[in-house]
Amino acid sequence: MLIGKIVGTLVAEQKDPKLVGTKLLVVRQLDVKARETEGYVIAADTVGAGVGEVILYATGSSARQTLATENKPIDATIMAIVDTWEVYGEVMYTSNCSPCDNQLVVR
Amino acid sequence: MLIGKIVGTLVAEQKDPKLVGTKLLVVRQLDVKARETEGYVIAADTVGAGVGEVILYATGSSARQTLATENKPIDATIMAIVDTWEVYGEVMYTSNCSPCDNQLVVR
Amino acid sequence: MLIGKIVGTLVAEQKDPKLVGTKLLVVRQLDVKARETEGYVIAADTVGAGVGEVILYATGSSARQTLATENKPIDATIMAIVDTWEVYGEVMYTSNCSPCDNQLVVR
Amino acid sequence: MLIGKIVGTLVAEQKDPKLVGTKLLVVRQLDVKARETEGYVIAADTVGAGVGEVILYATGSSARQTLATENKPIDATIMAIVDTWEVYGEVMYTSNCSPCDNQLVVR
Amino acid sequence: MLIGKIVGTLVAEQKDPKLVGTKLLVVRQLDVKARETEGYVIAADTVGAGVGEVILYATGSSARQTLATENKPIDATIMAIVDTWEVYGEVMYTSNCSPCDNQLVVR
Repeated sequence: MLIGKIVGTLVAEQKDPKLVGTKLLVVRQLDVKARETEGYVIAADTVGAGVGEVILYATGSSARQTLATENKPIDATIMAIVDTWEVYGEVMYTSNCSPCDNQLVVR
Repeated sequence: MLIGKIVGTLVAEQKDPKLVGTKLLVVRQLDVKARETEGYVIAADTVGAGVGEVILYATGSSARQTLATENKPIDATIMAIVDTWEVYGEVMYTSNCSPCDNQLVVR
Repeated sequence: MLIGKIVGTLVAEQKDPKLVGTKLLVVRQLDVKARETEGYVIAADTVGAGVGEVILYATGSSARQTLATENKPIDATIMAIVDTWEVYGEVMYTSNCSPCDNQLVVR
Repeated sequence: MLIGKIVGTLVAEQKDPKLVGTKLLVVRQLDVKARETEGYVIAADTVGAGVGEVILYATGSSARQTLATENKPIDATIMAIVDTWEVYGEVMYTSNCSPCDNQLVVR
Repeated sequence: MLIGKIVGTLVAEQKDPKLVGTKLLVVRQLDVKARETEGYVIAADTVGAGVGEVILYATGSSARQTLATENKPIDATIMAIVDTWEVYGEVMYTSNCSPCDNQLVVR
């Protein structure tokens, strides 16, 4: 899986019938230090994520292993909202820094 | 999924029997700001898309999860025509800017 | 799918039993303007293609969706011989330019 | 499969129900000489690996072929802890260099 | 499939039970002219290949389509030992150049 940040939404009226009701989000891939990279993907949301949140997404056939995406023409799925991760004991990101909302940790 | 723009068509008479009747389109990958990249893919159309339209395509086994592509040797499928997407509240692309047709938003 | 040009053949006597009888070809990936790129793949032929021909190939599990490749350890399959494709109305390649044989269109 | 080094852990409370109980680790890809590369992946652990250990991970549908990951939206799985590997007879890495713990071989 | 050269072996005692008995080899990807590239993969051997040999490997779900790898968390499998390949009639590699053993053709 890769870590991403939800940066936007996408609307498509004319689509495969199986996609009706699927929320499509624009996701920027983050690197291990929580910085945005050039990579992006349009992913199906299955966990109620919103713009600004840092999430985990799965690709390929693994993206169809949720109740909301099975047997659908979807190759990228958001299946977790990230609370925090650390590298060698140093926190790279945390969502729990109230009153800030989903701000990256100052490094 | 990735966002692409249909830039052309491909004809192949001698092919696997399962591909008879499949419309094959040349798709340029777009970046998140709706600019054409160097990447391309030949994709099966399942939504009646045409040259100039901005679409969403799925790859890998997910490309076979539509009625038109199941069990076929197809690894890229157009499964939605994009109306609009935005990033951090800014519209990156909209197809609904009549009288323009599928023109990118001026940024 | 991607467009490729068959540039050679590969021989392997000691192999998985399922591969007996499979013709293995060396394929150079072409870009959208029909130019050879650095990318290559060894693909199973299922349409009687030969050296010099421009073809379409599928990868991953989709490569196993032909009668000749199902359930085999094959991840790239030639499933169509390309006649022509165009981009924004301009012909990028055509095989039908007799007396030339499979020559690229002069651009 | 690729060789990686576990460099951290990731916590996500809000996630697909199938992911409950799955340990998610931050893995840096190593090159063939055991050097860290820029590549990373968030992988499910199935062998009790910990930070600092050098491991093998599988991606795609193969990542779901363990008892702990089957049918889950997981596209990268740690399925072995590496003891040693060598290239042309030269040891590139060994975990068995007590009293050092998982230190790379000096080259 | 891609062409690779076996350059080493990897040992991992603590692993998924399905991997017991699987020989894991370090494979350098070769380009179409038989030169080693930076790319590598750890692949399961199913054809009795050894260090120095030039082989063909399949990745993804196709890597599980051999008797020795089915249903295992393996995403790269060696399924053929290459004897020779040629590009536009020129031999790029041959294993049959006794008394040399698996040496590349001088070009």
